[in-house]
Amino acid sequence: MDDEQKLTQLKSLLNEVWDLRRVVRLLQWDQQVKMPIGGTHGRAHQLATLSQLEHVKFTSEEIGQLLEDLQPYAGQLDPDANDARLIRVTTRRYKKKTRVPADWVARKAEAASEGYRAWEEARATDNFSLFQPYLEKNVSLRQEYAEFFKPYEHVYDPLLDEFEPGIKTREVQQIFDELRPHQVALIQAIGERAQVGDSFLHQPFDEEKQRDFGAEVVTRFGYDWKRGRQDVSPHPFTESLGLGDVRITTRFMPDYLSSAMFSTFHESGHAIYEQGIDPDLDRTHLATGASLGLHESQSRLYENLVGRSYDFWIHFYPRLQEYFPMQLANVSLESFYSGINKVEPSLIRVEADEATYNLHIMLRLELEIALIEGQVLVKDLPGEWNDRMGEYLGLTPTNDALGVLQDVHWSEGYIGYFSTYALGNLISAQLWECIHTDIPDLPEQVRRGEFSRLTGWLTEKIHRHGAKFEPQELVTQATGSKIDPAPYLRYLESKYGQIYGL
Amino acid sequence: MDDEQKLTQLKSLLNEVWDLRRVVRLLQWDQQVKMPIGGTHGRAHQLATLSQLEHVKFTSEEIGQLLEDLQPYAGQLDPDANDARLIRVTTRRYKKKTRVPADWVARKAEAASEGYRAWEEARATDNFSLFQPYLEKNVSLRQEYAEFFKPYEHVYDPLLDEFEPGIKTREVQQIFDELRPHQVALIQAIGERAQVGDSFLHQPFDEEKQRDFGAEVVTRFGYDWKRGRQDVSPHPFTESLGLGDVRITTRFMPDYLSSAMFSTFHESGHAIYEQGIDPDLDRTHLATGASLGLHESQSRLYENLVGRSYDFWIHFYPRLQEYFPMQLANVSLESFYSGINKVEPSLIRVEADEATYNLHIMLRLELEIALIEGQVLVKDLPGEWNDRMGEYLGLTPTNDALGVLQDVHWSEGYIGYFSTYALGNLISAQLWECIHTDIPDLPEQVRRGEFSRLTGWLTEKIHRHGAKFEPQELVTQATGSKIDPAPYLRYLESKYGQIYGL
Repeated sequence: MDDEQKLTQLKSLLNEVWDLRRVVRLLQWDQQVKMPIGGTHGRAHQLATLSQLEHVKFTSEEIGQLLEDLQPYAGQLDPDANDARLIRVTTRRYKKKTRVPADWVARKAEAASEGYRAWEEARATDNFSLFQPYLEKNVSLRQEYAEFFKPYEHVYDPLLDEFEPGIKTREVQQIFDELRPHQVALIQAIGERAQVGDSFLHQPFDEEKQRDFGAEVVTRFGYDWKRGRQDVSPHPFTESLGLGDVRITTRFMPDYLSSAMFSTFHESGHAIYEQGIDPDLDRTHLATGASLGLHESQSRLYENLVGRSYDFWIHFYPRLQEYFPMQLANVSLESFYSGINKVEPSLIRVEADEATYNLHIMLRLELEIALIEGQVLVKDLPGEWNDRMGEYLGLTPTNDALGVLQDVHWSEGYIGYFSTYALGNLISAQLWECIHTDIPDLPEQVRRGEFSRLTGWLTEKIHRHGAKFEPQELVTQATGSKIDPAPYLRYLESKYGQIYGL
Repeated sequence: MDDEQKLTQLKSLLNEVWDLRRVVRLLQWDQQVKMPIGGTHGRAHQLATLSQLEHVKFTSEEIGQLLEDLQPYAGQLDPDANDARLIRVTTRRYKKKTRVPADWVARKAEAASEGYRAWEEARATDNFSLFQPYLEKNVSLRQEYAEFFKPYEHVYDPLLDEFEPGIKTREVQQIFDELRPHQVALIQAIGERAQVGDSFLHQPFDEEKQRDFGAEVVTRFGYDWKRGRQDVSPHPFTESLGLGDVRITTRFMPDYLSSAMFSTFHESGHAIYEQGIDPDLDRTHLATGASLGLHESQSRLYENLVGRSYDFWIHFYPRLQEYFPMQLANVSLESFYSGINKVEPSLIRVEADEATYNLHIMLRLELEIALIEGQVLVKDLPGEWNDRMGEYLGLTPTNDALGVLQDVHWSEGYIGYFSTYALGNLISAQLWECIHTDIPDLPEQVRRGEFSRLTGWLTEKIHRHGAKFEPQELVTQATGSKIDPAPYLRYLESKYGQIYGL
């Protein structure tokens, strides 16, 4: 086989691997959205069989040999060409996957499943000690995992790399060290001002109308319904089953408007990202977002930078009032805008507002790093958690269910994940500033409910590239600098300065 | 490895194969029920990848060797034990699958896909000649297929065996030769009597109420919603995604009551069959029905023997009138019962009533056999079709779209399939007679809307065995004789004799 034949063969094998991955996603989507309870046992087997097949197929010697053989060929291509990037990204993933022994993968899967069950019970009974041995197991497995990737700069690097390829612990720490004092100070300043009202958000809102309004907005954002659909699930999520089939879900709260509305905007951001990927990359490992952080930057951008902006509601608030005249006719645009942007330190991350959210993440990141370093022991985690909550948000959880037990991630061994949420926030603001430079009249467009140029800019700079570039490369290409907390701080300070009169 | 280890290994491999098959079914279910149009291209790839993987895994040398090694072990077991049957049934399928060259499979898949497209166009434009070369290709591929299974008693046997394992062309011909003159005579006799009215079925019927009534009935039949769900799709079907997840679909016609109602009863029969399979057989090739004919016997039994019986409506007609008082308050039970059992020869199989249905099948079976034998050429098919329609039903299609082009099956190369519909009718009546012997007060139970003993009998005799037995074995076990047309004829003659006063 010559190089081009080898590349064709490689792509054909990767296409099969990718098909398996997409089908795993369908199994998961269906499980959360449609599957009857009786399917649980059989579905677990199907997921295990397909995940295992995907792993075996991807880590095959044949793919390894083709990747090795194709290195010189890739070196002759334009380094940013799709084929060059495919070989590069796939080689990197192949090397990572094949460094990890099958035995570790099996132990991890078992620990995740047992950890999840223990966490459920611990949270329900507010008893951290039930969870402690399982979390210790997960931490120790992740420490073991890091050792497969020696030498490393920091023991946490290999964990972070799973979610943010190429980003180092040191970089994330620098970013968050810069961010932390400003965010803490902002919260304190806001806490000294008069609180804004948002009681009008807590009224009965017809579910069908909530859905229709959300659909109207995300259609304007550019979500393509011919290549997607929206369903109801216990937790909102986005699943790409192929570039032509990117589905979003939400849940409707009958007595609270913000939940489904902003989660619909949020998920549409994830989906528009996936729908915008260059079709040439389909059925390969490049047919997805660059990282979780980049993905979150898109969802947060539509949810917050657009969806919680005053400009946006100049256009859409009259529409929303038409949907809900009983509830909103007597609420002014100004009150509505303040209400949806109310800042209130709270114990629960997923209920946090824009101003406090990142502090929830920093706390988790610091604790994760300390756990993996061995500086904090699992048994001391509840105390460490509560201390930091007091320091950052001025609150102390009255029990561990409202504290260290609130998130599912650690129970399943996801350590290295949380920072992506905060990085997404930072990137969204960084992109936002650049978009305004390139599209000076964007505020006027948003005030008219027009998003085609905004989404076009994001597609051009971010979406179409899929996973060709690592997050720092892609952010640098799009904005001229690496991930930088300054734009997000400027955004928060300007927005909340105005709302709270700081 | 000793024999028990080999059996464990065999089961483990078959479990993976079966998981892949179930996942293929989910891909198909989703495609018809949920998938956005944009997913078409990617879904075709996913289906091809998984079907191919399933084939490669099942026909692997490892499975072949294990099956061969386990023959003596199987010989020592009770021949009806699950393990003995698993080895026997799987060996039979393995031998069949491995006799067919991969090249033929690829050509067949291509011919099916091209044939389907040509058929769609031919039917839309009523132009058989567009379809003729593709049907010729499909017929010739099936003739080629039969040759892989030489020696055979009849060239059509290997085709039939795909859908009704073990049944011979000779048997089916004998059954249908006995049936034909009686059914033709019955239709003629009915045609000479005054027609019954059914205009009340053609009124507006609220879709949600149609759904609720259907769900109420199939719940009583024994359909387990914890292990299933109902959705809307262009054509009603049942899909088993595992014994704990058996889904039905229907389509609602806003102006015709019978369509969704009887198709819901029908699909619930298929689903109750799958839900009733012994869980010990799950994730193996025994975890499905014994044949398409057996499957159809269950769907027809609930749809017709129960669902179109007078006893059934004694209980349910008052309920139906509560759902639709405007439409049915002034329609008597007797009129309703006659209306849903109206016999009227028509050109289209899927719209045929119980009395005429089998004649549509016989016509197709005769033509299929003649095509495969080479006694009839594809180019002469429209004429042959129309001649038989005149002979059996006294009707002549005014165009081929209403005649030879009406069904999709042949376009995709399904030759050998049609007879399973008629066999299902016959088996349903044969079982029905036996059930009445074993449960003498069944009519009283049905008149009270009670079906637990009926469904219990079917589960005991048919459902739980899955695919352990071949259709003739299973029917003989359950009824004491092989498939026999006499009970169905008795059923038709008694029922329609009463309705039409013959």
